[in-house]
Amino acid sequence: MILAAMAIAMFSASAAAPEDPRYTADGQLVLPSGYREWVYLTSGLGMTYGAPQESADPAFDNVFVNRAAYDGFLKTGTWPDQTVMVLEIRSSQSKGSINRAGHFQSAVRAVEVHVKDQKRFPSKWGFFGFAPGKNTASLIPSTERCYSCHEKEGAVDTTFVQFYPTLIETAKTKGTWHLPSEPRP
Amino acid sequence: MILAAMAIAMFSASAAAPEDPRYTADGQLVLPSGYREWVYLTSGLGMTYGAPQESADPAFDNVFVNRAAYDGFLKTGTWPDQTVMVLEIRSSQSKGSINRAGHFQSAVRAVEVHVKDQKRFPSKWGFFGFAPGKNTASLIPSTERCYSCHEKEGAVDTTFVQFYPTLIETAKTKGTWHLPSEPRP
Repeated sequence: MILAAMAIAMFSASAAAPEDPRYTADGQLVLPSGYREWVYLTSGLGMTYGAPQESADPAFDNVFVNRAAYDGFLKTGTWPDQTVMVLEIRSSQSKGSINRAGHFQSAVRAVEVHVKDQKRFPSKWGFFGFAPGKNTASLIPSTERCYSCHEKEGAVDTTFVQFYPTLIETAKTKGTWHLPSEPRP
Repeated sequence: MILAAMAIAMFSASAAAPEDPRYTADGQLVLPSGYREWVYLTSGLGMTYGAPQESADPAFDNVFVNRAAYDGFLKTGTWPDQTVMVLEIRSSQSKGSINRAGHFQSAVRAVEVHVKDQKRFPSKWGFFGFAPGKNTASLIPSTERCYSCHEKEGAVDTTFVQFYPTLIETAKTKGTWHLPSEPRP
């Protein structure tokens, strides 16, 4: 009886797929509440594609992806539908506790989310930017630069797999890797 | 019948606890193969408690913990037995793809592991340092400085929760938080 109850609980959890993106009635994306427990891809500090600028408080960015999408990537070298990638941007600190130099992470500044949904978004992927403390965000229009830059520069399916050290080899092996400086396979 | 089989599979998986630390016959710790899919705690860049030094290639450190330990921490504010914390140290790069400044992550330089096992280790916790490409590591003797520093400076149970932004509030709420500059609760 206990086993049956556990099985039903497991089955329900799987059917509910709590990592799938959720939207409000007016099409805003709800911030995935559990993203910090998703699969971690990488972090950067002060990364920029603009002119280099010195900053006393450069931002960390941490990238997470939902587990089903990660598992799919390992199998195929690309992202399945309903992939949700979360870019968490945090302030940095240098002095604190025993730390005397370098940088460690402090408060969240913003969260950006990149969702693959081939039926919902004209270009298959949608971007959403969450202001600090906000739980919902509107779709960023597809005319914004994030879309064209990701499409042109992302190594795999409009995503920056070139910065995700544990996925690079998979993409190359599966033949899904492409940088603009390289001829299309 | 399918539900029963699923229930048994789930039960077995839980009993096997694949995230528990494994040791060789001569007591070396086996590197936990799946740690990159564990729960992520934080990253730093070029963190040091020694004299600050400028480096063109400061190291990133990424911290992961096994899920059972993370769930235990959320409930109690401290780490259960069989907690495994992994510090992954990676080289950094500054220029690559569209990135022009700041730092992103590249190859693994070393992996350090901190295991809580109150029966196995005299001071409850053991440290292990894995050289690049090595799959096993011997226990670091408890006379080494890592033990005394973690014991003195770690905010919770000899660990540096002061650098794990998502756990600080839990430790403070549960009353397990303690810094050397603060009186013991």
